[in-house]
Order: sequence, then structure tokens, then C-alpha cells
Amino acid sequence: MTAVQHDEQAAQSETAQPGSGSQPVGDTDTQAPPAVDFDTNPGSYRHWALSVDGDVATLTMKVDEDGGLVPGYELKMNSYDLGVDIELYDAVQRLRFEHPEVKSVVMTGGLDRMFCAGANIRMLAQSSHAWKVNFCKFTNETRNGIEDATEFSGQTWIAALNGTAAGGGYELALACDDIVLIDDGSSTVSLPEVPLLGVLPGTGGLTRVVDKRFVRKDRADLFATKSEGYRGDTAVQWGLIDATFPKREWDEQIAARAADAASRSTRSGGQGVALTPLDRTIDGDTIRYPYVSASVDRAARRVDITVEGPADSPPADAAGVLEQGVDYWPLALTRALDDLVLRLRTNEQDLGSWVFRTSGDAERVLEYDAQLRELSQDWFVNEVGLFYKRLLKRLDVTSRSLIAVIEPGSCYAGLLLEIALAADRQYMLDGVYEDVDADATPATIVLTACNDGLLPMGNGLTRLASRFYGHDDALEAARAAFDRPLDARAADEIGMVTSALDDIDFEDEVRIALEERASLSPDALTGMEANHRFVGPETVETKVFGRLTAWQNWIFNRPNAVGEQGALKVYGTGAKAKFNWERV
Amino acid sequence: MTAVQHDEQAAQSETAQPGSGSQPVGDTDTQAPPAVDFDTNPGSYRHWALSVDGDVATLTMKVDEDGGLVPGYELKMNSYDLGVDIELYDAVQRLRFEHPEVKSVVMTGGLDRMFCAGANIRMLAQSSHAWKVNFCKFTNETRNGIEDATEFSGQTWIAALNGTAAGGGYELALACDDIVLIDDGSSTVSLPEVPLLGVLPGTGGLTRVVDKRFVRKDRADLFATKSEGYRGDTAVQWGLIDATFPKREWDEQIAARAADAASRSTRSGGQGVALTPLDRTIDGDTIRYPYVSASVDRAARRVDITVEGPADSPPADAAGVLEQGVDYWPLALTRALDDLVLRLRTNEQDLGSWVFRTSGDAERVLEYDAQLRELSQDWFVNEVGLFYKRLLKRLDVTSRSLIAVIEPGSCYAGLLLEIALAADRQYMLDGVYEDVDADATPATIVLTACNDGLLPMGNGLTRLASRFYGHDDALEAARAAFDRPLDARAADEIGMVTSALDDIDFEDEVRIALEERASLSPDALTGMEANHRFVGPETVETKVFGRLTAWQNWIFNRPNAVGEQGALKVYGTGAKAKFNWERV
Repeated sequence: MTAVQHDEQAAQSETAQPGSGSQPVGDTDTQAPPAVDFDTNPGSYRHWALSVDGDVATLTMKVDEDGGLVPGYELKMNSYDLGVDIELYDAVQRLRFEHPEVKSVVMTGGLDRMFCAGANIRMLAQSSHAWKVNFCKFTNETRNGIEDATEFSGQTWIAALNGTAAGGGYELALACDDIVLIDDGSSTVSLPEVPLLGVLPGTGGLTRVVDKRFVRKDRADLFATKSEGYRGDTAVQWGLIDATFPKREWDEQIAARAADAASRSTRSGGQGVALTPLDRTIDGDTIRYPYVSASVDRAARRVDITVEGPADSPPADAAGVLEQGVDYWPLALTRALDDLVLRLRTNEQDLGSWVFRTSGDAERVLEYDAQLRELSQDWFVNEVGLFYKRLLKRLDVTSRSLIAVIEPGSCYAGLLLEIALAADRQYMLDGVYEDVDADATPATIVLTACNDGLLPMGNGLTRLASRFYGHDDALEAARAAFDRPLDARAADEIGMVTSALDDIDFEDEVRIALEERASLSPDALTGMEANHRFVGPETVETKVFGRLTAWQNWIFNRPNAVGEQGALKVYGTGAKAKFNWERV
Repeated sequence: MTAVQHDEQAAQSETAQPGSGSQPVGDTDTQAPPAVDFDTNPGSYRHWALSVDGDVATLTMKVDEDGGLVPGYELKMNSYDLGVDIELYDAVQRLRFEHPEVKSVVMTGGLDRMFCAGANIRMLAQSSHAWKVNFCKFTNETRNGIEDATEFSGQTWIAALNGTAAGGGYELALACDDIVLIDDGSSTVSLPEVPLLGVLPGTGGLTRVVDKRFVRKDRADLFATKSEGYRGDTAVQWGLIDATFPKREWDEQIAARAADAASRSTRSGGQGVALTPLDRTIDGDTIRYPYVSASVDRAARRVDITVEGPADSPPADAAGVLEQGVDYWPLALTRALDDLVLRLRTNEQDLGSWVFRTSGDAERVLEYDAQLRELSQDWFVNEVGLFYKRLLKRLDVTSRSLIAVIEPGSCYAGLLLEIALAADRQYMLDGVYEDVDADATPATIVLTACNDGLLPMGNGLTRLASRFYGHDDALEAARAAFDRPLDARAADEIGMVTSALDDIDFEDEVRIALEERASLSPDALTGMEANHRFVGPETVETKVFGRLTAWQNWIFNRPNAVGEQGALKVYGTGAKAKFNWERV
């Protein structure tokens, strides 16, 4: 089930009364669109071409107009939809894992005079509110991944704008470290969303212009209200781009910049790890991967997710790790959980609560936990850790209630404990389920240095530091408890769990908590969680997800944008938007 | 015109198509409610009682059930509406200006077992979206003012919760430095908005719980989903309150805490300055105060605001300043502009652009500018500067486009230049209007140390530092230009203005800019400006206005809250809210 709908049905949905449910509404012949799938590979790309030449890769966007993910729009002028971005995400991931030799990535366009026109307007206009919001979230995460590659993987992205970069096209460029625009007398960079569509640039544009590119506020204001954008010199002077060159110098200059970025990289080179197809089995309401499984309870609007610890000890050294490749336990579980998160977010919007459990041998988890730190200088182990970090960040911005349950048999240790720390609540059984297995070993959790540095949140703090924000003494106490099993009482004492009850009360407590959660307004929960999860400092990343996204979601819900005469709806029809002029 | 409406009409408004306009809709007998007025004084309070005993003031909330600002609801259980908060704002201001002897303020309730039930739900349910948003903004600003008094005026606020503090009642307490709850076996603190109303606490609650009181995220989650809240010990342990005492110890403990806070204050004592009624004249579409006037152009949906410089040089010393009292030019203009901002925001929502001009002698402005800094140790001069700082912060969070026009005859110097820095754009005429007065002196601006420290924004940076965020060299260049007149070319050169054109182009440029602005989606502009105005670091204050407010506005616009079966609408009717369960 997806939320993509055609005009009339979308309009119906936008004005639906609460309680009418979120029925999947199909396309014109009433077929519900299939669930969105995130599997792809360069051989089946329809919209991008990836080529590698020595230590420089070139990723060329040439969107197949007829290749929209759902019917109802044509992807003209390199405009994109979720399907285009799924391929981009795949390319970003493969460049990191399959190409340790690639030290700089040139992103350019395959059309003449138009690099990318941004998100497809017709697609946005016909999409439900939830679809638009989810689409923006995923595209934001992919762009953050590009910045992450530049910062932490020695793989610098260069935007070689061989034509106009409008809206989302310019936002794509903003994720790159270096933005070069062709000087052809007509190509510009622009953010025309406000003047043309009555919405905000939805992929971090406003924030990155002032907080990453440091463009002066009044110039940012001019820029974001000028639909045609700015060309070379002004764009360079204001900081919107880094350089502009005429066509005759283009290839040479781009090559020089790519070579220069590559020369500054410490990326190792060597043999990559092929991201082979995921081993995923869907059986009714159950999804299984190696090390991850999920079971849906539709009546309770809940999904129970179990992450399994490793079956064996880790390989002895980096070479052994590399040999395991995608089967290396931390990577296998990260890939699986990443796919699951994306599928649930996109295809299962009614499942409001995600309940996490772990199962396995904590000692073995800790061996991998130690290895991630010990071998962090190895390019592949580094990439695995960074991917896991990005997955956890996805959880932080997921608009679902995240609940961790800690029971006998669990292995919430170090890097797996991080899942519990990402959750909104942590419920830990004190003791065992007497009526199930009175001889079981009571659950413990283990904190490690992994929880204190390797996996920061978007706010720059670890989840542990965020948990104890403003309480340095509590943070120190938690640090003093590293590397040893903490039973429920000990975990509770140092503030690591929300609740630690014995089995007489535990099951009732968890059941009631989940029932109560499922009764609350989904919107209020989303807003509440988005405010609680990020304490303390803010960064470009948290501003994009916290401030910009919230305003965009508001605007996406307003008649001035999405009403029948709203700017987003009438764009391209020749009609003029009609606004309610009230400033709110 | 206000936006307060009764149920059916409000519902109509919520689903109005863009372009239907924002017609004022009256109460049941179709009378449009009068424009909201912010003038009041302790003698005419209906909802609060202010008493002063030595260096401790007591502010007691006892809301008149029949004293709602507009018809349609009863203010039971010390619930509040905008009218109640207007009185609170007045009290906060008078305590600062009229009572230099007051060093601590005890805020308590005049009812039994209920300190304050928060914002009136029926009022919220019947209000338009714009009204709710504006109401929340004003209440947030008043609470920030309480924190400002505690931090900068040596006037510590203590919340003496003699009964339950629910929702906005607890948020009021959160603005205080010290929260004490009575231990009577039943009184609690709570944020029941999410579970009961399907909205967020709208006055900073979520942010202050985690970012000011440092309550752990999972406990904040439990708290904000538990409608009945928490009592004494748990509330103290979690950091929700500072202390709890039984009734028999209550008076003594509160008095001791107030005395302790007062004893730590450096506030001077002495004679206060009476905040006499504002001298305001409304004549059609013109509003005039001493030093401030505004003229409305309804067709252009614009208001032109002129701030006048001082008529004379400032008094020679602090005693002379005190003698002038409310007539001291910086205070007179601040009071006037503050009133104007509030009236325009509340009563004139269709006026999307505010165009600022100044007029007068820059040299005289600079004399006051210097005095504010030189006499900043004087309690009254300090208060004037702080009030002006808060007024400027109001501009920063005002959902209107702010445009500064700098022409011959203007006096944008130091503290008045700050208004231009708060604006989204600064247009400066290079030279003179040849056809108006060819012999006029071209406009100049003057930067002073006032622009570099005295008047920080909510993000903790000055507007000058925000303007040049990420460009330390440009900030240094601006600092090097302090205290000397900069003509248009010089101002442009160091980046102080958006545009500096001669009169052949200037008038067209400004006219077209204003026309274009007036054609854009009001919602998109609001979101855009909210993102551009705050660069760099974030604070509780910017999080409340940037992150929390945006999510709240989104939720306030969703059927799950405000639809006919939404939680906010059906509250109190006995019906159960019906939700669309989709998580967005």
C-alpha cells in the first residue's frame, strides 16, 4: 500500500475526516500501487549512469521521463520522484562499499542546459500529505549521506552543474562540497519553490544556504523569492556556488577539481565489497532477513522487530572482515534494518509503534563492538560503522513511536544497545518470566565506548550524552559502568531504562503502554517525539529535520499550497493560485 | 477584526479555500468582535492580583470565569485566554519598571487545589488557526519575558503551585526559576495536551522540560503522554519541579524561598517609573504614538511604519533619565512600537509586509545609544535596554515580511539601525531623490557597539553577528566601521544593505519588491522567513519558536486535532476523537 493517489482522490484524502482511515487509493484503474521497493543496482538504473575512471567517479543524472514510480506524471527536464532518489541512494551506498578506490565523485547531468529541475511538481501535486513528507525525509537522508561520504569517507562530492539547477536540483548540489555552474549565459541556480509553488524547498535548501554556505540573510531572502535564480558571478559572490566556467573550459576545470579533491583524500583504495541483493522473505505480515525479522500486528497498529546477535565470533582481522563482505554481521544487520525501516516508513504508515527486541549472545555482540572500534582505521570497517550510524539517525527522525523491550535472551550490548537508546522508552524485565522459563538468565545490558562516540546523533551528541543532557554527573556514572553487564536494577539505577519491573507487573506495564500509545493522536505523537529526541545543540542536520521540515509539513497541509486553487495544485495548468492572504 | 469565531463558523474557516479571504466572522449575533487592545493596568485586572510586600511581590491568578476576551467559553478552573495573558504581560512589565524594589516574584493561584488548568480548551476549539498561532506566540513571548526578568533584572520568579498545574499552567511554571508544588495528595504537574487534546503543549513545554529542566527523554515521553501528570516525589526526582511541601509548611517555605532569591538579587531598589497610559491616536488607517506612526495600505496589504528620532539630547545623568520616566525617548518609542507590533499582529493579519522607515537626527540617536551603554548599570536604563531587546525579538518571530527603507532624513544609527538589521531586506537610496529635494543630505547609517552586544537575538548572537555568520572577516570589517556615518556605497561595500541604488532605479526597485512580496503565498513566506532569520546556534528560545511552534502549527492544522471529530474539537463533549491513524 502506498499513499500515491491521483488528483481527485488525493483531494478527497487531504480533506478526509479523522477516523476515515487511510485506505490505500489506487491509480485510475483502481489498482493499488505496489509497495515501494528499495532494491536496485546500477545495471537496472533508469535515471542515473555511474562510471568510474581511476579514483574519480562520475554520476550522471538523465531521468527517464516515462520512468515515474507511479502513474500520473512525466519526469521531464531531469525532475525526480522517489524512484529516482532510490537509485541515487543506491549509488551513494555502492560508491562507499564497492569503490574504495573512488576519492571524488562528480555529479552532473545528462541533459542540455538543465542539470535538474528538482522534485516533479505534478508528482507532488497529486501526492497525499504523508507521501510528500516521507519523500522529503528520504531525499534529505540521502543528501545527508552524500555529506557524510565527503566528511568521513574521503569521498568528496562535486556538483558539476552543466545546466540550470532549480529547486531540488540546487538542493542536490548543496549537499556537495563543491558547486560549479556552467557559464553559458542562461544557466542558473534557483530555489523557486516559494514564488512558484507556495511551498518551501523541501530538502534542506533554506537551511544549507544560510547555515552551510553562509549566504547573508537578506540575500538568501532575495534568492528564495526570485524564481529565475542567479547566474555565475552573483552566485559566486553571494556564496551560492563556488565557481563558474564557460563550456570551453568545463571538462578541464571539472577534471582538475575532481583530481584535486582526490589528491587530498586518505581513502585507501583496494578491493571493494559487492552489495549483493538482500536476502528478504515476506510471508504475510512477517518480513525476515538474516539477523532481522519483523512481525506486523495490524489490529494493534504495531510492528515487532527483532534484531539477532551474531552467530559466530568476528574474523580475526581486517582481511577476514573484508572477506566476509556483506555477510559481516554488523553490515548484514544494518542493511537489513535499513531496508526494513524504509519499507515500513513508506508502505506501512498506519503502524504507529515499532517495538524493538534483540536476541542472542551479548558476549559475541561485544566482540564485534570492540572490533568496530579497534579496526576503525580500516576503510571497510569504517564504512560499516558509518552506515550503522546513518541507520540510527534514520530512527531518530522516524515518525513512529519507538519502544525497546529488554528481556531474558536479549543482547542489548554496545552497538545494539544503541537501538534502545534511540527508542522513546526502554522497558526492562527485572528477573525472568517465571511462568515461561524460571531458569532463564535475567537480561542485562552492556554500555561500551561505542555508545559514547562512534555513533553520534544529528545534533553532534551521542545518544548517551543526549540522554543525560544537563546531568554531567549521570553521564559520568554511566561511563563508569562501561563494559560490564548491568541487570535491571543496576540499569535503572544509573538511568538507562524507563522502567524495570518484575514479571508480575512487567507484561501488564508494557501491554498498557502500547495500548495507550496506539490510542493517541498520530500527529501529536510525531510532533512530541520530534521535540523530545533532539536536546541541546543544533546542526544543519537537526535544523533541516526539526525546523525546516516542520514548517514545510505545515505548509504542505495548508490550502494555499494544496487546496484546489493552491499554488502547488494549479502549477502548470495556466491558472493562477488564489491565496487566503492571512499571515499566520 | 479578530479571528475568533464560533464553532460552525470556525469550521468553515478551517476548510476555506484559498482566495476566499479571511473575513472577520463575528460571534453568534454576527457582531464582529472589536480589535484586541493590549492596554490594561492592575486597577482593572479581572484575572490577576498583584501585591507587593517589601522586596517580594505576589502575583495571584484567579481568573474571572465570565471574563473571556470574546464570547463562547467560560474560563473555569483558572484556564486562560488571550485576555488573561494580556494582564499577565502587563504585570510582568510593571514589576520591572514600577517596582525596582521587587527582587522576587511569587506566582501563585487563587483557587483551591487548582493552580491553573492551562489555555481554555473551548476557546482553542472555537478559534481559527491564525488566532491559535498568534495566541501561542504572545504567550510564549510573555513567558520569555519572565525568564528575562529572572536572568537580567534580578527579579526571580517562583512558581508556588498551590494546586494542579496542567498544560499551559505547568508551562507558566516552567518559565519560573523555581517550581514548588503543594503536597496535598492530589495536586500534580502535567502536560495533558497530547493524550487529551491531540495537540502539543503550545507554550514551550516540551522544549523546556528537556532543554531547561533537563528531564530525561524517556521520562519526558512518559510525562507528556500521561494526562494526570505526576505528584511530588516523582516530579522532584525527575526534575519536573524543584520541591514539594505539605500545606502546613507551605507559606513558610514559599516565603523562605522568596526571601532567599531576593537576598541574592543585586536589584537596586528605589523609585519606580509609572507606566502611564499610552498616548495613541487612531484615525482611519493611521495609528500615531509619540515617535512612532503607522499607515495602512489595505489594497497593497502593507503597513508603513515610521520611527522618529528624539527631539532633544538625553538628560545628563541617570537621575535625569529617571525623571523623564516613560517620556525617556528610548522607552517611549519602545512602548509605542511594542504596542503597534502586538496590535498589527493580532488585528491585521492580512497586512503581510511591514515597511520600516526612520526619521530624525542621527546624532541625537547616537547620544541615546551611547547613554544606554554608559548607564547600563542603572536599573532603569538597564530595563529600557532590555525592553527594547525584547521588542526586537518580537520582530524576529513576527510572521510578516519586514522591509527597511533607508532614505534622506532617516536616522538609522546604532539602536535604531537594529530595526533594519531585524528586517528581511534593507533598501538604501544612494544619493537623494532629485525631483523631491535635490539639496537633501544623502542618507547614512551608523553602526555602534549597541549593534554588537546589547541587543542579542534569541539565538544568542547579535543581529550583526547573525548577518555575517560564517564570515568572520566581514564581521570584523563591520566592527571597524563603528561610529562613523556610512553612505550607501560604504554601507553596501561592507554588506550592511541589500541594495543601494540611485533614485533613477531605487523607487522602481522598492515598488517592484513590495508588489512581488505581496503576491507570494503568505504561508510559504512565513516558513521561509522563520528559517532564514535564525542562523547558527539554537537556544531554548529559538527551539520554542522555530521547532516546537512549527510542529504545533502543523498539528493545529490537521483534522486529527481540529477536524469535526478531532481531539481538540470534541474535548468535553463526551464524544471520542476519531483519528486518521496514518503517521506522517
